[in-house]
Amino acid sequence: MKIPKGFSFGVAEAAIKKPGRPDMAVIFSEKEAAIAGVFTTNRIKGAPVKLDIERIKKGRAGAIVVNSGNANVCNGQKGIRDAREMARIAALGLGIDEETVYVASTGVIGTPMPMERIKPVLAAMAKGSGALVSGFEDVARAMMTTDTFPKYAARSFKLDGREVRIAAVAKGSGMIHPNMATMLCFIITDIGIGKAALNRALRDSVDKSFNRITVDGDTSTSDTVLLMANGLAGNPPVKISSGGYAQFSRALDDITTELARMVARDGEGATKLIEVHVKGAKTKKDALSGAFTIADSPLVKTAFFGNDANWGRIMAALGRSGISIEEEKVDIYMGKIKIVGGGKSKGKDAEAGRLLKASKEISLVVDLNLGVWSEKVLTCDLTDEYVRINAEYRT
Amino acid sequence: MKIPKGFSFGVAEAAIKKPGRPDMAVIFSEKEAAIAGVFTTNRIKGAPVKLDIERIKKGRAGAIVVNSGNANVCNGQKGIRDAREMARIAALGLGIDEETVYVASTGVIGTPMPMERIKPVLAAMAKGSGALVSGFEDVARAMMTTDTFPKYAARSFKLDGREVRIAAVAKGSGMIHPNMATMLCFIITDIGIGKAALNRALRDSVDKSFNRITVDGDTSTSDTVLLMANGLAGNPPVKISSGGYAQFSRALDDITTELARMVARDGEGATKLIEVHVKGAKTKKDALSGAFTIADSPLVKTAFFGNDANWGRIMAALGRSGISIEEEKVDIYMGKIKIVGGGKSKGKDAEAGRLLKASKEISLVVDLNLGVWSEKVLTCDLTDEYVRINAEYRT
Repeated sequence: MKIPKGFSFGVAEAAIKKPGRPDMAVIFSEKEAAIAGVFTTNRIKGAPVKLDIERIKKGRAGAIVVNSGNANVCNGQKGIRDAREMARIAALGLGIDEETVYVASTGVIGTPMPMERIKPVLAAMAKGSGALVSGFEDVARAMMTTDTFPKYAARSFKLDGREVRIAAVAKGSGMIHPNMATMLCFIITDIGIGKAALNRALRDSVDKSFNRITVDGDTSTSDTVLLMANGLAGNPPVKISSGGYAQFSRALDDITTELARMVARDGEGATKLIEVHVKGAKTKKDALSGAFTIADSPLVKTAFFGNDANWGRIMAALGRSGISIEEEKVDIYMGKIKIVGGGKSKGKDAEAGRLLKASKEISLVVDLNLGVWSEKVLTCDLTDEYVRINAEYRT
Repeated sequence: MKIPKGFSFGVAEAAIKKPGRPDMAVIFSEKEAAIAGVFTTNRIKGAPVKLDIERIKKGRAGAIVVNSGNANVCNGQKGIRDAREMARIAALGLGIDEETVYVASTGVIGTPMPMERIKPVLAAMAKGSGALVSGFEDVARAMMTTDTFPKYAARSFKLDGREVRIAAVAKGSGMIHPNMATMLCFIITDIGIGKAALNRALRDSVDKSFNRITVDGDTSTSDTVLLMANGLAGNPPVKISSGGYAQFSRALDDITTELARMVARDGEGATKLIEVHVKGAKTKKDALSGAFTIADSPLVKTAFFGNDANWGRIMAALGRSGISIEEEKVDIYMGKIKIVGGGKSKGKDAEAGRLLKASKEISLVVDLNLGVWSEKVLTCDLTDEYVRINAEYRT
């Protein structure tokens, strides 16, 4: 992984939830960076999210502090003080303005942060940039909760003769209802870029990636995507109207899409990655609602787990989604197998079932045959393991 | 169970999905009855639902034919012909107008009805009212799919010196997402009642009962509630303005509420019945949306299964429900234990966990402390057994 110039990383163990694994990390840019962010729309927001939303207005960033094991949500004024204190300690060690430090926390809700353990560990980890000797992959590992693998991706491209690098880490594993399971993603780049371009590129990219694995556009109390750009690649600053903007956007989209796919694949207890593609819709909104209603249906998801090409549940989900639909026009494909034609069975359920059994990734295509709009959403199957993970999460 | 006068019942085995259990039933009124109905709002509707919606406009009813094992949904024109044929055969045997026969089917979607088995069995069962020798409880049994127990209830009361009886059977066991799992309920009464009063009483009653165990107000492709009133009690016909209307409504509400509770309790794989009570809401709509969002959250449901008083998930569900909420005003009670006060933990999670472990029924009260509106919704926990049932349903 090619790491953008001027970034360094620290990882440490503060035993926030339990000992035995790294659960804190710092991402540091030696040159103050521009920053853009996208945050949860949940009305209940974690203390770190509240802090970041305030700080990002100025668009300045020196470092990000992240921890797993505790989300610091619903902890009242103490929660806010603790998030602020974490930023202050990191800033002090790194010798930067505390207003340029962002915080992200993921884990249980409603338990106060164990600051007595966090403070000394954070102070030691952030003791000057020379102490930051970890790799970016290590940051991905320290962010994990129920994730089964660390998630990172990188791209680079030439711009005006300079090499520009982008790299990102993400966590998220509650795909089945990501509206509740925190999704964090930190993207770093050494591109020189204007504030408007940075913001627009991030917003558009998240809409095409993480917002296509999110049910109903709902988000957890802590969802956070941050993009830091420190300009050390040395290119002339990119604007929305520059040629370089498209190049940067493409590389950014590649990374966010790749990470979103990893988050969906790592859905809690999942055995299958499912791409739900609704096409032939009357409107864009119809295509998206139809795809999300199918992708969010527990009955559809459990059928996929059981390798059952149960298209009746897909039809029923479409029917209750509120979108325009004509029963006798609907075609449904599982992979390349047409299982429904004109709203009726094509007698291929057993064949499709065998395909499901043999597949770790499956494409479900629903053609409404009513218009030209099309949307794709990623989801995964619903398994007994999902229930086990979420029934036992705190115990 | 006191059965209303003039009704008789037949039950038979047609091996619609598989042999070995009764899967067809007929409910017959010797005197033509008035009828009111409430049907699914899903845009994909089963053939029997389409037939019933057409017939109920005239408000006349002689019989209801019901089967389990096949929902007769998404079967194109053949589905419509088959539903019509089932009504015709029953009408012929019972000697009544086929336009007064209603059909309800529950089971798999998209598989043609095995009419070669259904026709002779139905003809033999409905061979004159003298052949209808089964009990009303038997009808409840024949309707079962994944239900673990038959559901019926009855009430009677005095009206103008006459005894009026109401009885009902219901099926439904996909409580976790009843929007997909068919709910059927057939209510019979011998009260004399006007058409407007009958319709209004049923609509109001369903809204207070079955619509309070339904997620988002969504319904399956086949949901059907029918209420037949044959007038044989001999009371002067009840109107909305009559004193008897309140008596009738109360008895009807008792029955529908009792059955709705049974349906929730029998949620697929459920181990707990959960009453979600949101109070102190700014509006009625807020109270209802808040209660449904909590009741529908897989993360909340799995936590209940794990006896984990995970109120963070409840707060997060409230936060994404879109209702007015002030974090620092929220109180949450598990049974009588206050686990959250002013949006923060009261340190009673372990105690509440023990209560959960000991309870088959639990009341969850969320006080938003913002207004006077209050709504209750019934749901159940989400278990690995739910996943097993729905992954293996067709296999």
